[in-house]
Amino acid sequence: MKQVAIVMGSKSDGPTMKHAAEMLDTLGIEYHAEVVSAHRTPHLLQEFAETAEEKGYQVIIAGAGGAAHLPGMIAAFTHIPVLGVPVKSSKLSGVDSLYSIVQMPKGVAVGTLAIGEAGAGNAGLLAAQIIGLNDPIVTQKIKDFRAAQTQDVLDNHKLDF
Amino acid sequence: MKQVAIVMGSKSDGPTMKHAAEMLDTLGIEYHAEVVSAHRTPHLLQEFAETAEEKGYQVIIAGAGGAAHLPGMIAAFTHIPVLGVPVKSSKLSGVDSLYSIVQMPKGVAVGTLAIGEAGAGNAGLLAAQIIGLNDPIVTQKIKDFRAAQTQDVLDNHKLDF
Amino acid sequence: MKQVAIVMGSKSDGPTMKHAAEMLDTLGIEYHAEVVSAHRTPHLLQEFAETAEEKGYQVIIAGAGGAAHLPGMIAAFTHIPVLGVPVKSSKLSGVDSLYSIVQMPKGVAVGTLAIGEAGAGNAGLLAAQIIGLNDPIVTQKIKDFRAAQTQDVLDNHKLDF
Amino acid sequence: MKQVAIVMGSKSDGPTMKHAAEMLDTLGIEYHAEVVSAHRTPHLLQEFAETAEEKGYQVIIAGAGGAAHLPGMIAAFTHIPVLGVPVKSSKLSGVDSLYSIVQMPKGVAVGTLAIGEAGAGNAGLLAAQIIGLNDPIVTQKIKDFRAAQTQDVLDNHKLDF
Amino acid sequence: MKQVAIVMGSKSDGPTMKHAAEMLDTLGIEYHAEVVSAHRTPHLLQEFAETAEEKGYQVIIAGAGGAAHLPGMIAAFTHIPVLGVPVKSSKLSGVDSLYSIVQMPKGVAVGTLAIGEAGAGNAGLLAAQIIGLNDPIVTQKIKDFRAAQTQDVLDNHKLDF
Amino acid sequence: MKQVAIVMGSKSDGPTMKHAAEMLDTLGIEYHAEVVSAHRTPHLLQEFAETAEEKGYQVIIAGAGGAAHLPGMIAAFTHIPVLGVPVKSSKLSGVDSLYSIVQMPKGVAVGTLAIGEAGAGNAGLLAAQIIGLNDPIVTQKIKDFRAAQTQDVLDNHKLDF
Amino acid sequence: MKQVAIVMGSKSDGPTMKHAAEMLDTLGIEYHAEVVSAHRTPHLLQEFAETAEEKGYQVIIAGAGGAAHLPGMIAAFTHIPVLGVPVKSSKLSGVDSLYSIVQMPKGVAVGTLAIGEAGAGNAGLLAAQIIGLNDPIVTQKIKDFRAAQTQDVLDNHKLDF
Amino acid sequence: MKQVAIVMGSKSDGPTMKHAAEMLDTLGIEYHAEVVSAHRTPHLLQEFAETAEEKGYQVIIAGAGGAAHLPGMIAAFTHIPVLGVPVKSSKLSGVDSLYSIVQMPKGVAVGTLAIGEAGAGNAGLLAAQIIGLNDPIVTQKIKDFRAAQTQDVLDNHKLDF
Repeated sequence: MKQVAIVMGSKSDGPTMKHAAEMLDTLGIEYHAEVVSAHRTPHLLQEFAETAEEKGYQVIIAGAGGAAHLPGMIAAFTHIPVLGVPVKSSKLSGVDSLYSIVQMPKGVAVGTLAIGEAGAGNAGLLAAQIIGLNDPIVTQKIKDFRAAQTQDVLDNHKLDF
Repeated sequence: MKQVAIVMGSKSDGPTMKHAAEMLDTLGIEYHAEVVSAHRTPHLLQEFAETAEEKGYQVIIAGAGGAAHLPGMIAAFTHIPVLGVPVKSSKLSGVDSLYSIVQMPKGVAVGTLAIGEAGAGNAGLLAAQIIGLNDPIVTQKIKDFRAAQTQDVLDNHKLDF
Repeated sequence: MKQVAIVMGSKSDGPTMKHAAEMLDTLGIEYHAEVVSAHRTPHLLQEFAETAEEKGYQVIIAGAGGAAHLPGMIAAFTHIPVLGVPVKSSKLSGVDSLYSIVQMPKGVAVGTLAIGEAGAGNAGLLAAQIIGLNDPIVTQKIKDFRAAQTQDVLDNHKLDF
Repeated sequence: MKQVAIVMGSKSDGPTMKHAAEMLDTLGIEYHAEVVSAHRTPHLLQEFAETAEEKGYQVIIAGAGGAAHLPGMIAAFTHIPVLGVPVKSSKLSGVDSLYSIVQMPKGVAVGTLAIGEAGAGNAGLLAAQIIGLNDPIVTQKIKDFRAAQTQDVLDNHKLDF
Repeated sequence: MKQVAIVMGSKSDGPTMKHAAEMLDTLGIEYHAEVVSAHRTPHLLQEFAETAEEKGYQVIIAGAGGAAHLPGMIAAFTHIPVLGVPVKSSKLSGVDSLYSIVQMPKGVAVGTLAIGEAGAGNAGLLAAQIIGLNDPIVTQKIKDFRAAQTQDVLDNHKLDF
Repeated sequence: MKQVAIVMGSKSDGPTMKHAAEMLDTLGIEYHAEVVSAHRTPHLLQEFAETAEEKGYQVIIAGAGGAAHLPGMIAAFTHIPVLGVPVKSSKLSGVDSLYSIVQMPKGVAVGTLAIGEAGAGNAGLLAAQIIGLNDPIVTQKIKDFRAAQTQDVLDNHKLDF
Repeated sequence: MKQVAIVMGSKSDGPTMKHAAEMLDTLGIEYHAEVVSAHRTPHLLQEFAETAEEKGYQVIIAGAGGAAHLPGMIAAFTHIPVLGVPVKSSKLSGVDSLYSIVQMPKGVAVGTLAIGEAGAGNAGLLAAQIIGLNDPIVTQKIKDFRAAQTQDVLDNHKLDF
Repeated sequence: MKQVAIVMGSKSDGPTMKHAAEMLDTLGIEYHAEVVSAHRTPHLLQEFAETAEEKGYQVIIAGAGGAAHLPGMIAAFTHIPVLGVPVKSSKLSGVDSLYSIVQMPKGVAVGTLAIGEAGAGNAGLLAAQIIGLNDPIVTQKIKDFRAAQTQDVLDNHKLDF
């Protein structure tokens, strides 16, 4: 069963959101990925969000750019934790995406990550941290990943300036 | 029959959105006003938007603040023209509201007005201009309103500096 | 008779504003397009705006960048609905254009769309939605266009991450 | 055992972060709250973060303002999910807090909520959603809370404009 | 004959623009002051600008807030130097006013001063500097004013910290 | 005798400031151009500014980027009108330059033009407008230039969309 | 002999800059404080900066708001380390002050602190840290101050939420 | 003994921070350079900062981008002066880096330089100015460097516009 769903507002968000998928691959978590447009397929959005629980998703990662309504509207239809990724927009560098996702009113929450690829990767990581709360194997993989990236810095921290 | 619907994301948006209502009053247009929260009442949002045509609304005015998804999501569910009013937010002065409303992706449109009361009033005015395209009485009222505000400036343009 | 006028402040706005024209083509609406500079041809602006009603335009789409005064000044001279498109500027990415267009004072309204091509396309769409209020053929074309773009997402929403 | 820890950079963040505590109270989750300053008590920060797992915290909510390093530095020392709340700052309205918290580099994640009270409340809610993944009683309380706030809008959505 | 005209978009700009008048008083320059709204009285704007030369104005000071089109549109109708004052706006603190005034396209110029009272005062000062190029009495008054403000700092530069 | 001085903070500002020079060429005004760095050559700045009057300059055009102190510091040392051009900066697109130039305190004025080439060209134009107040030949050239640019728009305002 | 000079652009900057003085008092460092306006007293600025070395100042703390040229211009005239404090401005909350101070070009440096009182206090602290490099008594006082503020957090870190 | 340490959050900050190293080379100051990631190697950060005094560093230059916690966290662990360099970020041009570094709370100070290469170079320069307070040879080199850059402007200040 897929534990995480990765959705995005447009196919053009794919190169950004792929970083979430790759992080989940690294951490051994299976996921489902699909395009769900808040504005062009609002019924699909609703159906996706309302069936998320029965499909067994434990975390939903939603990425979108510009007037990015996808993460917040999914959160409106489910109590499964939603993580939002502001995709860099062509005109405002993703500030519009960030504000549209993070500034949710009290009562419906979206955990927002950084703009772009870093945020997408970290959405995958945070999803794994959440799943790891009840899955020691995932937690161990996170610890290994974290240790490896620490070691990678340590192995290369000398600079020949 | 009410020709315009005024919706807003929260009761706290009322004092701002009242300016839309007052403008419509001035221009002799009947309206329906209600709170519809994109995040707390997403089913109501959908139902409201999908029945807007049969209820005879010709324009929908939607105001919201922060991660303001209401105008764009209504536009996702209907082909009735939607005008968006960014309500001033307590933290970011409405820049978040503005970006969340105006930066819609191609294919679903929201005509956005200024942040706050001025924008709400102008949403009422623009709604009337749209209705006036097929209603000479409304158009005459708009002309009268515009002439009156012009005259008001002319009557008071001297300053005793 | 042309139902929509597309004006822009400079020939360099053409590639952006073409998206409005293409949307109107898609939706079967005829339009007139011309360069009208608020600052270099203010008399032309006035004449254009004051004759818009008699020429039968039902909506005016105005695009401009930087200190973008064209949409607001056209709105000052006519009661025909004006839709504004903030063209991306070379220095401030269109934030200046957006603020100059959307922050109109109460009493003269401009319905503002997103910065750049998306906004231009949506100006065409919103113009059609307005015209469609009294033209079932246009409304049907909008419904078809919206259905097609929905179907396009649905047909391609699977991702092979 | 406390399932959630609420930490904040300064006593002055208390009125904001209280909204997280109140939401957890509403949802029946016990929490520990304490001031941990990234800059004035960095050893306490480290010790807090490194002992979070053994103390049984499942989620850490960290609020800070200005150059807000607390959430990201806690995340650097633990694999427990960290939720960050940008506290409104006196000079830049919390934009500095937001950027300092949300723009984390790939490899260490903070799920960021809205600036201020709304964000604090939603941090509590999202923490509960995470805990609820393995606690049906919490999930039921979330559903009740969500249903109640929906009902509250529905009961009051009529406006006497 | 009045050498300077001070115009503003709204009576509410008066308290700001008064600082321009006071500076001109200080420097012994006569001025005419009036409200001219770009959006509500566009014909007055045109007439004002096109008759500015024959009325003998040597500098026009124009203040406006929000989508501040007044300075740029006056400049479009005259070759008399135009100085623009961005009035602080209630929502965006005058950033909208500033961008709307300063970001003029090549070919029509507005010399822009600071947001608010400081800018209004300096518009009066710069107008005097321009007039002083051919009026030694005004130049002397500017020198006196500048010397006095320098002396004022020098007389009070000690601090009892 | 040169009537206008064009100064800039760095040789790298040359391509931007050349637009000021070209405009002055077009309008038949002679100018002196030189690099004067506020930070690297502060004594030259002072000497330049304090001798500007005796050298017969009627307007000083000063362009700089980043923490752009050149225009304001020249204005501090002279009563000759100073026009400031914010040069686009590599990191903040010229917003830093703009704020550093335009936000002068009351008592020392800089007339600020748009960021970049447009602003530089308009600084040349506004300088000419100032000189034209007492030089009918220059005024005529400005009128011709303005008429030509108007005609250029009129000759090309049709679009084949 | 005074080791630190605190200068500010205007008497109105006093309440902010007092925090620098108080920090120096706390750390046992004597200072001279005075108003030096870059724009109204440029000769005083130059003289102040050029005599700073012979007066024995080891650090100069300069605070200013808006188009804040004081810190950078002092740095242009001396090689004594300059610390800049962006004073909160009435219109742009100190973003203009910050950009004007921090964005110095390569070759003339200003170490910039936070906007407002926090930045002023920290300018005093950083000045002490610099002086402490060769003064063990000062270093000890800094250590004591830092330990005390750490202890203060530790003594009060429990919250009764 | 190395007098300055240059640290940066990631190897990708190297091309920016090299400008600090080059400036120190120019001014005859030896330095140690290394990658220390606040988020991926927090223990290394602590150890680095806590041993900085005994290693004899007199100034620490820390560069980082995005949610840039490195400079502030180093400052939290040492009383050696810390200079922060905001590295340009790919999404927000370094505004996030700047705010994360400069907006430190009262009690822990970071002297912040400009975004990017200019700031890195100036961090090297300011470090040398601090060291020069007790090292006449370094001070002389700074004076030579400053004189040379002044001369370089003077030698090239004529422009052939």
